[in-house]
Amino acid sequence: MYEPDPSTDLEQISETDCLELLEGHQIGRIALVVDSQPFIFPVNYAISHKIVTFRTAHGTKLIRAPGSNVAFEIDGFEPSTGVGWSVVVQGVAVDATTAVDDVSWMARGASPHPLAPGVRIHRLAIRPTQITGRRFTVGG
Amino acid sequence: MYEPDPSTDLEQISETDCLELLEGHQIGRIALVVDSQPFIFPVNYAISHKIVTFRTAHGTKLIRAPGSNVAFEIDGFEPSTGVGWSVVVQGVAVDATTAVDDVSWMARGASPHPLAPGVRIHRLAIRPTQITGRRFTVGG
Repeated sequence: MYEPDPSTDLEQISETDCLELLEGHQIGRIALVVDSQPFIFPVNYAISHKIVTFRTAHGTKLIRAPGSNVAFEIDGFEPSTGVGWSVVVQGVAVDATTAVDDVSWMARGASPHPLAPGVRIHRLAIRPTQITGRRFTVGG
Repeated sequence: MYEPDPSTDLEQISETDCLELLEGHQIGRIALVVDSQPFIFPVNYAISHKIVTFRTAHGTKLIRAPGSNVAFEIDGFEPSTGVGWSVVVQGVAVDATTAVDDVSWMARGASPHPLAPGVRIHRLAIRPTQITGRRFTVGG
């Protein structure tokens, strides 16, 4: 799904380096589709064995994500050089709150924080189909 | 389309403050849907009169965006306080490369950079339907 952009792309980032970047960051954005409308939400994520996981409260649009295609992105930009990078995980959202499949186990292991009492939190995970990254220049 | 998240939300950001944040930043992410799959791309954007605009090269997925629903997001996070914010522009993508509608005129006015010779660049703009923002805490 990666498409080189001849006007801005410098290089593709290897999956190994993508995973290292994912492990070194904390905040990403998830995109999902609800009734043909894309939504983006910033999330505080963790990653383990290529499984990105995060929590969401009951009642948000993210609660409708399980089973659907999602994209997760992190990025960075160095103003002094004009060079940016982004890593994107494409995959399918999984409700890992209580499920016992491999993805859910890894998701719960990656982010074992206690829950506030009374708050109905769900844990979502992304079963990845593709992890890609690129460095690019930010033109004027 | 804004949905408060009782577990993390601190406050909603007014549209006026959302626009100020949009004017003060340079890099955002656009989400669009191609064949039911959401994609996210970081873009170098400009904004004028609520119109977010950016350029894309021929051949990328973004070239298929005009006429479709898109979401554009910027965010920030202060690690010392654990407080983040995000601003989201929902709307419809417009090909503002040469069109003479109001949105396209404003888009070209907002980002009048010269193009590199030989590179087929398109200018996209977002006709906004909703601009929302929120501040939230990033839980552990």
